[in-house]
Amino acid sequence: MITANWKRSIYALLAIVLVLTAFLSAQAPLTAQAADAAEAAAPAQSQHARYIFLFIGDGMGVAQRNSAELYLANTENVETGLWYETKLLMNTFPAQGMTTTYDAGSIITDSASAGTAIATGHKTLSGVISMSPDKTEKYTTIAEIAKQQGWKVGVVTSVSLDHATPAVFYAHNASRKNMYAIAGDMVRSGFDYFAGGGLVQPQGSDGKSADIYVIAQNSGYTIVDNAADFNALQPGDGKVLAMNGILDNEAAMYYEMDRAENDLSLADYTRKGIELLDNPEGFFMMVEGGKIDWACHANDATASIKDTLAFDAAIAEAYAFYQAHPDETAIIVTGDHETGGMSIGFAGTQYASFFTKLTQQPESYLEFNKALEAFKAEKGASARLEDAFPMIEEYFGMVALSESDLKAAQDAVAQGAAEGASETDKAAAAEADALLSMTLTNAEIDVLRAAFAESMKDSSQRSSDSVAYNLYGGYEPLTIKLTTILDQKAGIGWTTYAHTGTPVQTSAVGVGNETFNGFYDNTEIFTKMMDIAGF
Amino acid sequence: MITANWKRSIYALLAIVLVLTAFLSAQAPLTAQAADAAEAAAPAQSQHARYIFLFIGDGMGVAQRNSAELYLANTENVETGLWYETKLLMNTFPAQGMTTTYDAGSIITDSASAGTAIATGHKTLSGVISMSPDKTEKYTTIAEIAKQQGWKVGVVTSVSLDHATPAVFYAHNASRKNMYAIAGDMVRSGFDYFAGGGLVQPQGSDGKSADIYVIAQNSGYTIVDNAADFNALQPGDGKVLAMNGILDNEAAMYYEMDRAENDLSLADYTRKGIELLDNPEGFFMMVEGGKIDWACHANDATASIKDTLAFDAAIAEAYAFYQAHPDETAIIVTGDHETGGMSIGFAGTQYASFFTKLTQQPESYLEFNKALEAFKAEKGASARLEDAFPMIEEYFGMVALSESDLKAAQDAVAQGAAEGASETDKAAAAEADALLSMTLTNAEIDVLRAAFAESMKDSSQRSSDSVAYNLYGGYEPLTIKLTTILDQKAGIGWTTYAHTGTPVQTSAVGVGNETFNGFYDNTEIFTKMMDIAGF
Repeated sequence: MITANWKRSIYALLAIVLVLTAFLSAQAPLTAQAADAAEAAAPAQSQHARYIFLFIGDGMGVAQRNSAELYLANTENVETGLWYETKLLMNTFPAQGMTTTYDAGSIITDSASAGTAIATGHKTLSGVISMSPDKTEKYTTIAEIAKQQGWKVGVVTSVSLDHATPAVFYAHNASRKNMYAIAGDMVRSGFDYFAGGGLVQPQGSDGKSADIYVIAQNSGYTIVDNAADFNALQPGDGKVLAMNGILDNEAAMYYEMDRAENDLSLADYTRKGIELLDNPEGFFMMVEGGKIDWACHANDATASIKDTLAFDAAIAEAYAFYQAHPDETAIIVTGDHETGGMSIGFAGTQYASFFTKLTQQPESYLEFNKALEAFKAEKGASARLEDAFPMIEEYFGMVALSESDLKAAQDAVAQGAAEGASETDKAAAAEADALLSMTLTNAEIDVLRAAFAESMKDSSQRSSDSVAYNLYGGYEPLTIKLTTILDQKAGIGWTTYAHTGTPVQTSAVGVGNETFNGFYDNTEIFTKMMDIAGF
Repeated sequence: MITANWKRSIYALLAIVLVLTAFLSAQAPLTAQAADAAEAAAPAQSQHARYIFLFIGDGMGVAQRNSAELYLANTENVETGLWYETKLLMNTFPAQGMTTTYDAGSIITDSASAGTAIATGHKTLSGVISMSPDKTEKYTTIAEIAKQQGWKVGVVTSVSLDHATPAVFYAHNASRKNMYAIAGDMVRSGFDYFAGGGLVQPQGSDGKSADIYVIAQNSGYTIVDNAADFNALQPGDGKVLAMNGILDNEAAMYYEMDRAENDLSLADYTRKGIELLDNPEGFFMMVEGGKIDWACHANDATASIKDTLAFDAAIAEAYAFYQAHPDETAIIVTGDHETGGMSIGFAGTQYASFFTKLTQQPESYLEFNKALEAFKAEKGASARLEDAFPMIEEYFGMVALSESDLKAAQDAVAQGAAEGASETDKAAAAEADALLSMTLTNAEIDVLRAAFAESMKDSSQRSSDSVAYNLYGGYEPLTIKLTTILDQKAGIGWTTYAHTGTPVQTSAVGVGNETFNGFYDNTEIFTKMMDIAGF
């Protein structure tokens, strides 16, 4: 009832304004141009947002969002028969635009130049952190402007805090590789809340420089590295730098599918960020789903899907805040680029999809890498692909059947389909059918055998030519072929281990969300946010 | 001035309505639900469109649109340095939404079920033409409703008129394969304008049934099969069935890149359609870019790009009409699904793109098929891949260099880059560099050699197992490997020969265009058009 009354008040107010406008227009005719200008200016007179959330799914294009939605629909909502009603929260936002992502040097951007475009409104070259293409000019970021305006600022990411996407909001550097200098900028930014991953080079590339964590503490940051202390944080505790006690490769959070139960999630970091940043002056919070990109580089659809779902769960935390403050909050969700050339379709599966097969992969490619490393240490040079079959079944659910087992399974399927088949026959047929659907074909085994041979070599002995790159993309050969083959069986295809230039989706809800409809460049995300903030 | 005055009148009227609404609301409080319903109903009170254009790019997803735009930017607007300002017309439309395309049986739709969703608002199974999934109920199409409402109706396509996408607007059939029955429905529809391709089965599948063209003539259709007669058509000439005198495979128009200069284009058919359909009662015209899909099935990016540009040129004809009737016209552009899993990126080219390489392909894969057929007839079983190299260079610009030629080119590049290189050296280096960029690698030649061997077999002797399908998709083996390799050199990847389930873009301009923002299902395109038409 409050909502309805409020709406009527706004209607009445709007009506009065319009009557006055019409009256004044009739008295003093405007030129068509002036009338258009007045119209264009109108949105700027509307209410500004005090709370702005920017969610960046790194590498998250149309297919990354859609595959996560379809996975959810096919695994959790399939009984209802209404699987198509399953939607990611971001896909239900009222504004849905398309965004071009090219940078100053290439149709295909990297995260540094894409992030710079979003954070500052300027195009730059790949690798550059919020500076001009010639690396002489520092571009001011929306996060810095928000801080100057008295807002609080938070930066959250599932990869390391000195990685390109978080860096473009607080740092200025000619190269994303200068992670120690970038981390120094992080501390100097004075931003209120950094959370998620750690730092790749806390003591510099040589490990001999002053420890950034110590500098951060001396600069007034509370450093938290466990869930108990984190959960105890309260508004008024001052500036915070928070992460899990144990981090994955490159100081990133673990993949969502590998995350320990008591480790903090991206949603946890987002929820606490809201609690700590909430203040009457306003706040700006950037949250990156950074490992969607890493999963797609490695052509691991399951890891991409689970991290996209974790990202959507983080968005849900912001959405709850938006629902409590609908007239003062804006949530923008975008991808900085697409990674992997992912498609919801693959030659071998033609017009069919089998997303439930992805449930056979309980852990990410990185965990299989560790298992493979242990296998290699144990079995040595004499190992055969066949020795790895049990491990392949454990990590990817795919099996290699002997000719006799294959025939038995095929016979069981035939028997279950025959006229007069018993219930027992039918049950056996269903089981055999499930087995066959996860059976490696001879062609797939050939591919795995070549990859296995390569994986068993010392990395120094491996081919590094373009043929090898096209096959394995610099990843552990057996691992990337296993993720790719499982994805193909599910009906998901990949074209590259790098980013693509295919435009991405941008979604928005809350104040000014309608400006995020349309087809626009990533630099305009900055200008639209600036308009919404009234900066 | 007229526009400005008109706008002020609307403002005044709107203000009065709002004052009354606010007043009445205050007198008799509504529930929140009723207030929401009143709001939702509001758009229906606005002005309706009398002229509705629906453009369906068959197989046209995000990457198909983007690749065409990038091709244009890289080939025509590169001198300005402002290539990123090059936009397809459809990409500049104010409304840009995302659309899900799944059908009643699969995440991956076919054109029959996708078309049925768009034309009737109902989901059905793949293959079904505007009927229910159980094939008992006929779904009424928006084109039929428009006709009942006294509008004129046109259906234009670059494939045959009895193909799935055009068929869903006028026919009802359990299977898209029943093309003779579908063509019968076409004539019975009484729609005013059919143009583009011909009919696949004008005399039935056995060639012995009554000729549809004769039936059409007897039903009052003027049949036109040449540009001169076509251009002479005038309003008042009655119902028209028009096509080029010579058609390509499957009674389709030629690919845009293969089109003879004096053959009619999709834009020609659209422009004439507007001229013939224009009348005070209104019209509905569906225009399909049908061979975008066919090109993508065949993984031929250049053919897809050129047909997408031809499609955009047809949209420009409608846009000119919209500009003359902005308050009565709506143009909607969508894709029925994505085809091929196309991406603007490929493993081998990593973060680079080379769209200009596609200019080396002057004709579509179909024309190369013809050349290959002639080559095979001439050379017979003894032919070697090397014999086909001149033809490969002619049709795709790719060359196989001998080791000495390769070394000479590499030396020339090195010499041009060396200190003190003369202008002649630099020019030679640039030429050698261009040559090297189109040189087939040994790995590519291996792929072509295997495909060539397969192509030289009689089609009855070719492998038809899943390995062969994954390699060649049922296409001419050498041809599809050549288009794929050229595309990969340009930086375009493919994952399938079939459709994908990745959502597509929908764009709109004109009356009610804002309703096409957001993320919605393809069935909603029907309901939104119905609302805009006021049906």
